Amino acid sequence: MNSKFHSLVITLLSDFGDVYPASMKGVILGIDPDANIVDITHSIPRHDVRAGAFILMTAAKYFPSGTVHIAVVDPGVGTKRRAIAIRAVSRNGDTHYFIGPDNGLLIPAARAAGEIEVYDISNKSLFLRNISGTFHGRDIFAPVGAHMLRGLRIEEVGGRILDFRDLDFGTGKKKCDSIYCEVIYIDSFGNIITNFSGKSLDFQPGDELQIEDIRVIFSSSYGFCEKGDPVALVGSHGFLEIAVNMGNAAKMFDKKQGDEIMIEHL
Amino acid sequence: MNSKFHSLVITLLSDFGDVYPASMKGVILGIDPDANIVDITHSIPRHDVRAGAFILMTAAKYFPSGTVHIAVVDPGVGTKRRAIAIRAVSRNGDTHYFIGPDNGLLIPAARAAGEIEVYDISNKSLFLRNISGTFHGRDIFAPVGAHMLRGLRIEEVGGRILDFRDLDFGTGKKKCDSIYCEVIYIDSFGNIITNFSGKSLDFQPGDELQIEDIRVIFSSSYGFCEKGDPVALVGSHGFLEIAVNMGNAAKMFDKKQGDEIMIEHL
Amino acid sequence: MNSKFHSLVITLLSDFGDVYPASMKGVILGIDPDANIVDITHSIPRHDVRAGAFILMTAAKYFPSGTVHIAVVDPGVGTKRRAIAIRAVSRNGDTHYFIGPDNGLLIPAARAAGEIEVYDISNKSLFLRNISGTFHGRDIFAPVGAHMLRGLRIEEVGGRILDFRDLDFGTGKKKCDSIYCEVIYIDSFGNIITNFSGKSLDFQPGDELQIEDIRVIFSSSYGFCEKGDPVALVGSHGFLEIAVNMGNAAKMFDKKQGDEIMIEHL
Repeated sequence: MNSKFHSLVITLLSDFGDVYPASMKGVILGIDPDANIVDITHSIPRHDVRAGAFILMTAAKYFPSGTVHIAVVDPGVGTKRRAIAIRAVSRNGDTHYFIGPDNGLLIPAARAAGEIEVYDISNKSLFLRNISGTFHGRDIFAPVGAHMLRGLRIEEVGGRILDFRDLDFGTGKKKCDSIYCEVIYIDSFGNIITNFSGKSLDFQPGDELQIEDIRVIFSSSYGFCEKGDPVALVGSHGFLEIAVNMGNAAKMFDKKQGDEIMIEHL
Repeated sequence: MNSKFHSLVITLLSDFGDVYPASMKGVILGIDPDANIVDITHSIPRHDVRAGAFILMTAAKYFPSGTVHIAVVDPGVGTKRRAIAIRAVSRNGDTHYFIGPDNGLLIPAARAAGEIEVYDISNKSLFLRNISGTFHGRDIFAPVGAHMLRGLRIEEVGGRILDFRDLDFGTGKKKCDSIYCEVIYIDSFGNIITNFSGKSLDFQPGDELQIEDIRVIFSSSYGFCEKGDPVALVGSHGFLEIAVNMGNAAKMFDKKQGDEIMIEHL
Repeated sequence: MNSKFHSLVITLLSDFGDVYPASMKGVILGIDPDANIVDITHSIPRHDVRAGAFILMTAAKYFPSGTVHIAVVDPGVGTKRRAIAIRAVSRNGDTHYFIGPDNGLLIPAARAAGEIEVYDISNKSLFLRNISGTFHGRDIFAPVGAHMLRGLRIEEVGGRILDFRDLDFGTGKKKCDSIYCEVIYIDSFGNIITNFSGKSLDFQPGDELQIEDIRVIFSSSYGFCEKGDPVALVGSHGFLEIAVNMGNAAKMFDKKQGDEIMIEHL
């Protein structure tokens, strides 16, 4: 039982909604009864690979070295898109594994976790015996992830590849006193999360910003403005975020994922 | 601690929604701190025993031998309906346990898992000391399930019975080139799941079907048709399913659970 | 590894909705890979401290001695409100720990669990290295909870305090044949839960009550009245509750959290 000396965490992320993830968990526990399964979410908007990639990127980095992350937002399930497994190793040696479809979903999280190597999942002896055309999460990704959790080397899932599908959120741009960035996620509270990193910001709490035709104060937290007031801040994921205290910023600013935003520093 | 050599998985399914399942988990962990608790779902439509029975049947079979499944969709809680425990043994010796109300909820899943024996839960020494009139999930089913997970023999929960309430989804019928079947579940995406087993189908991918007054292509997966197009396929649960790529089939075909569907092979 | 002889359960409650709790779990598992994490709920209405306090109080008591409860409904995150840890010891020696903001959220649950001692969380060596202004659940409460789960003494998180923020649901009043009480929670089915304890009631099943201008039967369970009929009962949490069989009592009686209700015994 030397596995007990390692972390045995496996995370799941998908757009499956309710009900369907349970059978993935059954499959995982059949292979590794000690697996500690954590749901990141199963409520990614259906087929929204970019939203899934963003959430995986922000959550995965908080898990311990050795964690296996299975993520499935997979509009191409049952067609010829490849299944991939990634090993990401950080400078201090922390290792994360990512398993899912080859559509870019895993890439931002894996790159954030370190240097990546990508493998084509082709070793069918690891799959469930009957592969459905619609649920590779259960039939392929879950068993492969569970075997890796038990110590299977990533080289045994298939050959290494270099031509995987990439996905990049960009970084936004600064020009004079303005920031040009993109909405990469709207959370369930209507907070607008942009692709502009908090590390590149030189705003101070109390600074005034002009976002579209609305005046917004930059702050360190939600709690410093009045109910219904908009506020800009560096969100918990580390990106510039626009929120409304007890309200919905996506509605106030009429923004959706993929939209551009211009923010002027007054 | 020889229990560690067995699987210690306990699943929960209910129509309790949010909040209420947590106290069931507390009760289970108080009896067996090593229990590995997995939620199948707590969002079964309220009091919909047939929907609960279908989801339990499709999910339970993916869990390892030894799993205890607690399921509670229980319009009759607090009245005189019995509580039951079932042992289901498959041909190769795999054993699953099912615990819940005697209203048919457990039966399709248990029969799918093997030969069944049904016991009336009557050993009150296993229950919580104070039994509420409204929450047997927490006060009766959770402690009984946790004791069974720790190795309590099913014969100790009460006497064996033969007159349990049955529930059968039927199988649909083939007549000439048409299939007559029933909607047994509408999932959260609006996919229509019928009671016609994929094993009895002789359609090939690309075949044309007439469903009500809509022309539908039979396919092996969602990914092969255009956005908004209907598609028929064998779903991940093994039954004939009608879906709309990125849309809602239940709305397009105006179907709800229990409705009949006629499918003509053109 | 003597921790294995104790319960290693840690519960989470918040108003974070989907997605955000996962990174708290990652942080906890990075500190204690054996933590058994149970979600009580993450769907508390946003910033509703009283609703969170009620749910925590009703759920926490079912968990085993030694459980650490992290609860975060925290309108003041990032401002100067304190973070606190509580040890509650019952008469028979059962111990529960509570971690969260100093806004009253933890108090009813902690008092229900026994005699309480409250500590100001100020030992920054326990926190994540980078503290965001908006997500102390992940950056402060999760790591402190995980360290306590691993055996850190509560005295090491900071100094004991006596001036914590209190919160009290009251108890309602009896006057002649009437009960005057308050709505403390509306659950997702629209059931109205009051602050009147079932232990103080002297109604018998079958008794008639007048609630506002509607005649209601007192019953021991939901199952004894017709579909659409209102019913009063002692709910699973131990308080007087008004429900509608297969319907929504909050709508029928036009009540929301904080409203008063007068119940006349006919």
